[in-house]
Amino acid sequence: MAAKCKTAGAMQCDLTRDVCQLKESVRSQGKQLGRLVRHMKMGCKKPPNQSTLKGLNPCLPCFKPDFLYHLGMDTATTNFPKVFGDVRFVCMGGTPGRMERFAYRIMKDLRLKLSPVTTLRNMADGHRFALYKVGPVLCVSHGMGCPSISILLHELFKMMHYAKCQNPVFIRIGTCGGIGIEPGTVVISSEALDCKLNPCYEVIVQGKIVQHCSKLDQCLAQELQSLANPCEVDFETVVGKTICADDFYEGQSRLDGAFCDYTSHSKTAYLLGLKGNGVVNFDMESTAFAALTKRANIRSAVVCVSVIDRMNGDQIRACPKSLSVWEKRPQELVSRYIRKVLLDEVNEAKKVNDVPARCVGGESEI
Amino acid sequence: MAAKCKTAGAMQCDLTRDVCQLKESVRSQGKQLGRLVRHMKMGCKKPPNQSTLKGLNPCLPCFKPDFLYHLGMDTATTNFPKVFGDVRFVCMGGTPGRMERFAYRIMKDLRLKLSPVTTLRNMADGHRFALYKVGPVLCVSHGMGCPSISILLHELFKMMHYAKCQNPVFIRIGTCGGIGIEPGTVVISSEALDCKLNPCYEVIVQGKIVQHCSKLDQCLAQELQSLANPCEVDFETVVGKTICADDFYEGQSRLDGAFCDYTSHSKTAYLLGLKGNGVVNFDMESTAFAALTKRANIRSAVVCVSVIDRMNGDQIRACPKSLSVWEKRPQELVSRYIRKVLLDEVNEAKKVNDVPARCVGGESEI
Repeated sequence: MAAKCKTAGAMQCDLTRDVCQLKESVRSQGKQLGRLVRHMKMGCKKPPNQSTLKGLNPCLPCFKPDFLYHLGMDTATTNFPKVFGDVRFVCMGGTPGRMERFAYRIMKDLRLKLSPVTTLRNMADGHRFALYKVGPVLCVSHGMGCPSISILLHELFKMMHYAKCQNPVFIRIGTCGGIGIEPGTVVISSEALDCKLNPCYEVIVQGKIVQHCSKLDQCLAQELQSLANPCEVDFETVVGKTICADDFYEGQSRLDGAFCDYTSHSKTAYLLGLKGNGVVNFDMESTAFAALTKRANIRSAVVCVSVIDRMNGDQIRACPKSLSVWEKRPQELVSRYIRKVLLDEVNEAKKVNDVPARCVGGESEI
Repeated sequence: MAAKCKTAGAMQCDLTRDVCQLKESVRSQGKQLGRLVRHMKMGCKKPPNQSTLKGLNPCLPCFKPDFLYHLGMDTATTNFPKVFGDVRFVCMGGTPGRMERFAYRIMKDLRLKLSPVTTLRNMADGHRFALYKVGPVLCVSHGMGCPSISILLHELFKMMHYAKCQNPVFIRIGTCGGIGIEPGTVVISSEALDCKLNPCYEVIVQGKIVQHCSKLDQCLAQELQSLANPCEVDFETVVGKTICADDFYEGQSRLDGAFCDYTSHSKTAYLLGLKGNGVVNFDMESTAFAALTKRANIRSAVVCVSVIDRMNGDQIRACPKSLSVWEKRPQELVSRYIRKVLLDEVNEAKKVNDVPARCVGGESEI
């Protein structure tokens, strides 16, 4: 009887163990199935067939290889999808030095790091622009004026196209002359106007004037403004219209150029008129930047720091230390925006996938 | 009697010696007087009170100090007459590297040399342009497009003004796209036209369009052409009209830009039309360069080498070796011109003064 009972008890034990093992198998398989589904959803996406840029030159496929002359790159010797396929943000500024400093800053902010034996390389071999890549961020210098930035944008758009980039955001980070605002104030452009106060960029094509709308992405401007919380930062940020001039001196009604055929009185009247129209600053690239990005279906913004209040003078006499502090302000805002976008994506990914996304989280090597 | 005779002989000797000494004194004084007259004529000229530039901003004397922001210089910390007062030639080109190479080349051609412990210094601290000084020659990079070169010219004219420079000659040494000419051909611009084929440069001042004539100095163009003796050089030099575009791609009717809303057929028709009007090349700075130098009473010329024949294509595919060889051709012509001007002055000076002039002759240190 005891042997019978023991056998029955042993059998119960075996059954219990089997149930446990089966449950564990089911749980394990369930996990695996879940990972598989998530992998199919998130990680197994086929690489995109084409970029999200629109309205581009239909003849681009004919150029095999295509030489991006001023960037010193071509599609034969650079694997664009591999090298630039992950670019999500293109940040542009006037000088090579400023964009190199921004590249190192964004590397730190995104917790990316270099191998101890390397340094960031200027990837543009054309001697015209400087170009640094830090994870999903391109940092590029554009020189001064619309013609210079237009050359760069044509070649960057071709780069994005060949690299099959998805929804890149372009942000110009610059310096500017403010109108009735304190030096050091950050200006997010609501729209870019030409010197006749029209939101347009003119190109003369085969002898005929062609106008392109130079309005900027309002949502992006608001999004950037929302990140400039006055409780968290010690500088002011304003949103307003930007006049894009083709000249630093006469075109911006300065009194200190080599030529000056107008009076101090007419200058003041002109600036007051601009102010009355909602213009808060001058720059020299915004119409080309706004119009060309808009044509290519690219979201873009212009974030500049004012280095002078033109209502009080024309000469930029701020000391190098102040200029250095001010230079970092648009960079801070743009860095905050980039981190927010990437963090939002990580949080979104975490809802369906527990693998932390690259670039935000622990330090990872470029 | 013998003593008397001896005395008479001795007296004659004394008189003869005195006459010799007096003659020597007269000759020596005559030499000194001659030197003094020459010195007063040639060497004792008072330093000029002002530069030969004209039409400049009448308010310039009010800016004490005046900051040349993009060159990173000011009149308080730089002694302009001392540092730049001897500048006679200002040579400008697109990239910092090209202008540095030209500076070393002109140093060699003028038989100037550096001290063994020094190197040429980029004197522009504004991070926008590169500026080298080699004896009477300034070598400056101007970036791309009219807005960029216009900023530089405003600041260089102010520099010339403060330095009291006399009759400086400005020459742009660049690359360009040719129309119906062999790549490698040197083009001396007869005049600079905008994209509507007008010889003018437009600036929008206080909302109003102001046009300035962009015709170039015909005598200087001919003088340069006369130095391009086909028996002595292995490249062709032509004189013709230059179209100044505000854009490298659509503005020059290229088919390989990020955007292209026209056909290959309309491009060819456009280029043939330009050719029929005497246009031989495209650049992106000539109207601003010609108009601004003309306004300031400065003789100027544009000497570019064509790196592509636009009738045969749009992509610049020349190998780096060819580009390097071609780059030197306008430099050769301009160097030859500078040497000729300086040599002519030396020969002129030699007619009234036997002291050889500086810079041409034996090697001298910068």
